[in-house]
Amino acid sequence: MAKKLPDIKQDFAQWYQEIVYQAELADTSPVKGCMVIRPYGNSLWENIKSVLDAKIKETGHQNALFPLLIPQKFLTKEAEHVEGFSPELAVVTHAGGKELEEPLVIRPTSETIIHYMFAKWIHSWRDLPLKINQWGNVVRWEMRTRPFLRTTEIFWQEGHTAHETAEEAAEEADLMLQEYKKLAEDYLAIPVVAGQKSESEKFPGADKTMSIEGMMPDGKALQMGTSHIISQNFAKVFEMTYQDRKGSMVYPFLTSWGMSTRVVGAVVMAHGDEKGLIIPPKVAPIHAVVVPILKKDADNKAVLEAAVAIKDALKKDFSIVVDDDDSKSPGAKFYKWELKGVPLRIEIGPRDLESGQAVVVDRLGLEKKAVLLSELPQYIVDQLDLIQKTLFERAEKRLKDQWCVRNKFSEFKDDLVKQGGFYQVGWCGSVECEKALKESQATIRCLLEEKKVTDCFYCDKKSECDVLVAKAY
Amino acid sequence: MAKKLPDIKQDFAQWYQEIVYQAELADTSPVKGCMVIRPYGNSLWENIKSVLDAKIKETGHQNALFPLLIPQKFLTKEAEHVEGFSPELAVVTHAGGKELEEPLVIRPTSETIIHYMFAKWIHSWRDLPLKINQWGNVVRWEMRTRPFLRTTEIFWQEGHTAHETAEEAAEEADLMLQEYKKLAEDYLAIPVVAGQKSESEKFPGADKTMSIEGMMPDGKALQMGTSHIISQNFAKVFEMTYQDRKGSMVYPFLTSWGMSTRVVGAVVMAHGDEKGLIIPPKVAPIHAVVVPILKKDADNKAVLEAAVAIKDALKKDFSIVVDDDDSKSPGAKFYKWELKGVPLRIEIGPRDLESGQAVVVDRLGLEKKAVLLSELPQYIVDQLDLIQKTLFERAEKRLKDQWCVRNKFSEFKDDLVKQGGFYQVGWCGSVECEKALKESQATIRCLLEEKKVTDCFYCDKKSECDVLVAKAY
Repeated sequence: MAKKLPDIKQDFAQWYQEIVYQAELADTSPVKGCMVIRPYGNSLWENIKSVLDAKIKETGHQNALFPLLIPQKFLTKEAEHVEGFSPELAVVTHAGGKELEEPLVIRPTSETIIHYMFAKWIHSWRDLPLKINQWGNVVRWEMRTRPFLRTTEIFWQEGHTAHETAEEAAEEADLMLQEYKKLAEDYLAIPVVAGQKSESEKFPGADKTMSIEGMMPDGKALQMGTSHIISQNFAKVFEMTYQDRKGSMVYPFLTSWGMSTRVVGAVVMAHGDEKGLIIPPKVAPIHAVVVPILKKDADNKAVLEAAVAIKDALKKDFSIVVDDDDSKSPGAKFYKWELKGVPLRIEIGPRDLESGQAVVVDRLGLEKKAVLLSELPQYIVDQLDLIQKTLFERAEKRLKDQWCVRNKFSEFKDDLVKQGGFYQVGWCGSVECEKALKESQATIRCLLEEKKVTDCFYCDKKSECDVLVAKAY
Repeated sequence: MAKKLPDIKQDFAQWYQEIVYQAELADTSPVKGCMVIRPYGNSLWENIKSVLDAKIKETGHQNALFPLLIPQKFLTKEAEHVEGFSPELAVVTHAGGKELEEPLVIRPTSETIIHYMFAKWIHSWRDLPLKINQWGNVVRWEMRTRPFLRTTEIFWQEGHTAHETAEEAAEEADLMLQEYKKLAEDYLAIPVVAGQKSESEKFPGADKTMSIEGMMPDGKALQMGTSHIISQNFAKVFEMTYQDRKGSMVYPFLTSWGMSTRVVGAVVMAHGDEKGLIIPPKVAPIHAVVVPILKKDADNKAVLEAAVAIKDALKKDFSIVVDDDDSKSPGAKFYKWELKGVPLRIEIGPRDLESGQAVVVDRLGLEKKAVLLSELPQYIVDQLDLIQKTLFERAEKRLKDQWCVRNKFSEFKDDLVKQGGFYQVGWCGSVECEKALKESQATIRCLLEEKKVTDCFYCDKKSECDVLVAKAY
């Protein structure tokens, strides 16, 4: 039997860990920092992948596959890049029974190997834009890991593009950031802030990094996707020259952008409650579970058949499971599927059968209703829409509640430590003031377009722009 | 400009290598033995994956993701397994800036780590059957590599299942072998022989290995998928006990089965000709290319618009590309898309426009026909069906021509060396006789159900069963 879930309000971190395992999204593995993504979690991830993959293709990108292993010297070509990733590398020193002449690293990200190939492929302006995406795994040796949120092996997509002009590259990076935002909001029902990172929070080797940031119920921000304008230095160190429209040999402008299984963690945290997960219908592995209400020592054949008939009537448009496990009570089944966050439960017992109806209960507790079987398909559509909408509205309300505008560090420092949340403050742009946030284990999550504050939150200077401060995962 | 293709009849190996690169299926990488799968090749692989993934799910399997890295000691638990894979392992000895206490190997296959997890998940007969599949990458340090056919990093799927009875496990292994056969024949248009491997050709750690074997035009067999009944020894070394229906603690019966990007190489070899690739329509990344016949220094607007209109009219059901590159002649375009093996070409010029038609040419040279635009969708359906069917029939005819029944090694040894092909012969079952085939660089590809020969091909004993002998990739 499942253990009781830790109290979500008392110990969110423990609740997160437990629900991930109990709902069978993932499991620990015998390899430090690596998780196993179990079928239910993987099905959720596949649904998210499939939405994102379609968006990536619609916007003119093509998928390709590059090697897992990268010659160590590639990483050292770009100074910032090597400094950023060196501490996290896993190194293959032996292979085929021999010591390698040159060690290979497992890719922590694929800029270097992909740029090497770009240099081979880009000869003329006619070869641009080159817009490539890769679905795959990367390895970063992390000290403190948590399933989905921070793992040694990361499952993700990484887009890499090359363009003729800086403007085009900037448009591309913006476009993909917006696609990430749409995915988060329209499918995962998580409102996010899309903005630029400060210099010190940039990707190692980027001229500009942007991210989407969600706010979790425990007051911590979660970076859910990043999009970068990559330094032209990469084009230079990989000798990526091409002939432009005027016949000159020039370097292209580069971007990269990525989103990982971290978003599965975001879904868990953003919507879960004391009963367990709540999965947004648009990405749910199972839309509804049919629970036949069986009587002990009775002939349950008709009820079981009706349950299967409901599934058959709905399976073209929805993912439906019939829970006909005869070793469990209806109550135990309700508990199980609530824990797994299935949006709808359809109960059918002998009496429902007589009146040609079923009882539909939603995971949010919005409504419990007897519905005629003939009206079930439309009711399911409506309820799933309602759940999707309600989840987003709830999360949006929470985001508003967790967002405040402040002037000085002293005014919000304690709150930031104790309850977390987003603090919109002014910033002079200096690294010194940014560093002061470390006292509260916080960082600037992103720069904001909107300007409400006049002075820097820390020093006496004027603010250059508003920034969003928070503790973060 | 593209280099001339090597003569497919004179030098098949060189032709293969060149067409893979020229058609942009794959490229060499700076990492020994690893290839880059380019968008066109990856799109073909994605189409194959999508068919196979649907079959895997329809047959009741669920996808999951397991770690890339495996503790080295896991590999050593099963004696045959470690002996089989040790020479091919890539070993991570350093990570996060430190030497690891215990080295990790990059998975050469995932039996060990998945069985470790199975032991964690399987407690009761109610947990069985457990039917898992993983799409991912594995690494085997190969000395001599060829794109798609033998690479250091392999992209594939590996299925792993656990069952209550030996019979169920045998049924599962058979079922998936048949699914592979269907995929090869119905989608890739490649007829294959499905059969059991001899003891010496088994997967390291299997009780029984079965494979599907295709015959390539150069007379070499290609193993295109394997399905194994895994030794119960794996269940024992990983302490995978569960309570059966009678309450006893017992071990489950295991299978595993895999298919890789090798099948992309099979498509290249099985159907290609002197002009390049021919991709079977059912898995083709592009079904038809529309080539507008543009006149120099003329107003080509109407023709270009008509080309796009053709694409728009077809794009719901087919993958269509308009080649409007104004730097290339129609002839150069024909050459390019024939090289890439696109099944159909639709030409439209000013005269066609006047008569409301387009000229459709198929890659096999079966027919060149002017078709009314209104009749184009149905004509495309019919032609794609015809191409798919014709490719299979051609390959089937070739398989028959390359298959002969022989009695004694001396009768077919020379032919086997010179022209290759399948030789159906009798076999006494001894390893000694099997080893004799090495003289001709050949192996027993599989045991046959059918029995046509009475004596062993090598010794004086009676044959136990007919076997299929060939050189192989």
